[in-house]
Amino acid sequence: MTKKKSDILVELAKRRGIFWPSYEIYGGVKGLLTLGNVGFEIKRRLENLWIKYFVYSRNFQIIESPVIGPRPVYVASGHESQFTDKALKCGKCGSVFRADHLLAEIGVNVPEGASTEHIDELVTRNMVKCPNCGENLSKAFQWLLMFKTEIGVGDLGYLRPETAQGIFTEFRRLYVHGRSSLPLGIAQVGKVFRNEISPRQGPIRLREFTIMEVEFFFDPDTNTGPSEERYLEETIPILTAEDQEKGISEPRKVKVGEAIKENIFSNNWIPFFLVLTKSFLEALWIPDGAYRFREKLPNERAHYAKQLFDCEVFLDSWGWTEVAGFAYRTDYDLSGHMRVSGEDMSVFVSSTNKKIVPHVVEPSFGAERLLYALLEYGLRIEEDGRTYLSIPPYLSPFDVSVFPLLSKPEFIAKAKEVAAILDCFKLNFDDSGSIGRRYARADEIGIPFAVTIDHQTFSDNTVTLRFRDTKEQKRISITSLPLELSRLLSPSKPIV
Amino acid sequence: MTKKKSDILVELAKRRGIFWPSYEIYGGVKGLLTLGNVGFEIKRRLENLWIKYFVYSRNFQIIESPVIGPRPVYVASGHESQFTDKALKCGKCGSVFRADHLLAEIGVNVPEGASTEHIDELVTRNMVKCPNCGENLSKAFQWLLMFKTEIGVGDLGYLRPETAQGIFTEFRRLYVHGRSSLPLGIAQVGKVFRNEISPRQGPIRLREFTIMEVEFFFDPDTNTGPSEERYLEETIPILTAEDQEKGISEPRKVKVGEAIKENIFSNNWIPFFLVLTKSFLEALWIPDGAYRFREKLPNERAHYAKQLFDCEVFLDSWGWTEVAGFAYRTDYDLSGHMRVSGEDMSVFVSSTNKKIVPHVVEPSFGAERLLYALLEYGLRIEEDGRTYLSIPPYLSPFDVSVFPLLSKPEFIAKAKEVAAILDCFKLNFDDSGSIGRRYARADEIGIPFAVTIDHQTFSDNTVTLRFRDTKEQKRISITSLPLELSRLLSPSKPIV
Repeated sequence: MTKKKSDILVELAKRRGIFWPSYEIYGGVKGLLTLGNVGFEIKRRLENLWIKYFVYSRNFQIIESPVIGPRPVYVASGHESQFTDKALKCGKCGSVFRADHLLAEIGVNVPEGASTEHIDELVTRNMVKCPNCGENLSKAFQWLLMFKTEIGVGDLGYLRPETAQGIFTEFRRLYVHGRSSLPLGIAQVGKVFRNEISPRQGPIRLREFTIMEVEFFFDPDTNTGPSEERYLEETIPILTAEDQEKGISEPRKVKVGEAIKENIFSNNWIPFFLVLTKSFLEALWIPDGAYRFREKLPNERAHYAKQLFDCEVFLDSWGWTEVAGFAYRTDYDLSGHMRVSGEDMSVFVSSTNKKIVPHVVEPSFGAERLLYALLEYGLRIEEDGRTYLSIPPYLSPFDVSVFPLLSKPEFIAKAKEVAAILDCFKLNFDDSGSIGRRYARADEIGIPFAVTIDHQTFSDNTVTLRFRDTKEQKRISITSLPLELSRLLSPSKPIV
Repeated sequence: MTKKKSDILVELAKRRGIFWPSYEIYGGVKGLLTLGNVGFEIKRRLENLWIKYFVYSRNFQIIESPVIGPRPVYVASGHESQFTDKALKCGKCGSVFRADHLLAEIGVNVPEGASTEHIDELVTRNMVKCPNCGENLSKAFQWLLMFKTEIGVGDLGYLRPETAQGIFTEFRRLYVHGRSSLPLGIAQVGKVFRNEISPRQGPIRLREFTIMEVEFFFDPDTNTGPSEERYLEETIPILTAEDQEKGISEPRKVKVGEAIKENIFSNNWIPFFLVLTKSFLEALWIPDGAYRFREKLPNERAHYAKQLFDCEVFLDSWGWTEVAGFAYRTDYDLSGHMRVSGEDMSVFVSSTNKKIVPHVVEPSFGAERLLYALLEYGLRIEEDGRTYLSIPPYLSPFDVSVFPLLSKPEFIAKAKEVAAILDCFKLNFDDSGSIGRRYARADEIGIPFAVTIDHQTFSDNTVTLRFRDTKEQKRISITSLPLELSRLLSPSKPIV
């Protein structure tokens, strides 16, 4: 029996410092992950690429707001009352279960958005008992998915479940920094926290993860899409709510311009960001057919969303998995903060001579899930056992390896000279073990190129440049190396 | 009366998107700061420069561990019992006060590390009452400086007060990823949380901030300093505990080699990191004389530290302010985790044939305080009111401005051509308002260079390149720009 790809990846990730479950010496805590040196570097470059695509290419702002928020923020945002799972508690042993998971285990499907009454009915009808002690379960109740804490003396606070509220609460200042004009894109990359009752799905369902999101503010009366029209010509794989309601489960490849005519989108900024995402996933080498944009059904949508698309990537162990969401949040959040804080969040639009509360489209990405998808699609295992990570050079943990062929002093000295010439790159300098072993170690963590100093180097100042995916080698003069590597490592650019 | 430099900075920071107090629409939360677009970019580059100096230049690992830790981690680390302030509570109105602050307000100095009994005595002797309602205060008690939360159902957790424990708990894996050899440097950059009772000092005393730290593991029997000897020749400003006990408050400029002979340091890794820090501060353009390395007195030291130096920078409003700490943590943390978890954290040293628990030296930097110091020392206000941020080009929020002299279509088109040629830089493209106004706006947020497309550009394909600090302008051909800017923007390198 061959091992599953995801098992090989998880083993490799532990062994080589990509990721692993945190706090193992204390028995571990579900849903918490540590990224080692290799994982950190790949994730950091992934974040940088996202910033390039979703912030710099659009001249958006990017900010950093606190993780901790005082309670009124999350009252206004609706999270305190709405950001919950339905739970059941055992009256005897006190165990708490996520209702839909517990019912799913005995083959009962709970529709998304089912009421607590509906769940109680299902529990009674199916005579569900506590799986730990066999006793009766409580009535279903709302389990708050936010982590609580106390700020100073007695002030309740929450750890943010999204970075968005740190943008909405500061909207008035950010609007001025953006020269008081719409549309306005404000991005943030940072840690968010979700207190799942008992997360499963290892590296996929995390209690603490990094989100990369844009809150894009626009005037729904005057600005319903980008002025450039290139995105209209692009084709994207889309599975609409309507299609799903008809029982269709395969996405359609549609040209964005056509889809807009079909009224699939509530505004044109959504398909624009879907096209930008397609371009981003291509830059991650996620293959065509491995991702789709699925519209969420009304009962699956977050409380703030009038329309919501998920970008899903197909993963070996987890099937179609959400890696990004595209929500049309309308003026839900700014209006909520106006109501609760009493502060005015409206802006004056001179072209229509009206005061409006801006509407928001939000593209939001999970960095760890994208990292996982990138690694799973990059993992290659050949017949002879050779394992390598075929990930884009600009996302690799090191730019290039520098290897002296032999670990003799003159080879090491020459290799150090070459390393000094390449000091603007992130180098993996390694002089221990056989050269084959060193290539294999570098391949396994996805280092795209290796420069080897060999006998010939001393006579003609050339080295070999080896390519990870093909194992191909070519000779190149040391003086040409910096420019050639810069060319090979230059990141891709957005198509829109 | 002239305005204080720090007031001008804080006003500028709010107006131009550097930093401001978070959640103002809800009345604010003390000790929480939002970084706007400009502040975020400068901080990000500051972090990148730190990583270059303290991670890449030493071939250390850098990882990312969770913010949330289960309680046993912080029992083992000693934080649950030791990481506290002494507090007093009003028996009537319930207000809580930091004991040393409350006593300081009536002119009573509380020595660091004073016991609760000692504070009770001071409160009684000075007849201290609640400043809010005039009633009697409680006995002094320990106020835990960690934020508490609940993980899943009923498991107490803390928000990390330092990133260090996320390294110590994972030491066994990290040691293997580092090829099972010492010394081993593991770095982390990330958010940490300290639940101050009622922080003052605005942007300096934060409840949530970014720490940049290295846990440097070594064998105290065989490895007490770096093999390179360059650091021994460097001079650093040092104020020893012994000097302070003699009443000396001025640091001495000492050559590291001499200071080592005087037995000032408990091991040679500490002065090595002090020299590296000197080099880093120079790269931030913090002037000589504006920083010092002060050894903490025994009663000022963190509970885990056998020796501790602070790097202090002199700030306009706050005086000498800690921006970094250098702690000799010995085997305190790894031994604590061994004891509480029951897992072995020792390693085998082949040269001595011994099993040891590695010792640790920890350089630890506060990113927001360094950002603040960088800005304060960068801020220049000229007689005529011209304000600019003289910060290093490689730390500026944008690399270069691109300005069409006039906002006519042909100027804008040509400026966009130039921008396309410069697309590997972070550009501030601005075509609105007078050119003087645009220079002033760019100067204020520290953009080091401006490229202006003027009439002459159309005849000879040259532009003006303007320098922020001197306002000097020179003509340069468009084709020479990329290389010239790369040269001007290249970051400095560590001296050791």
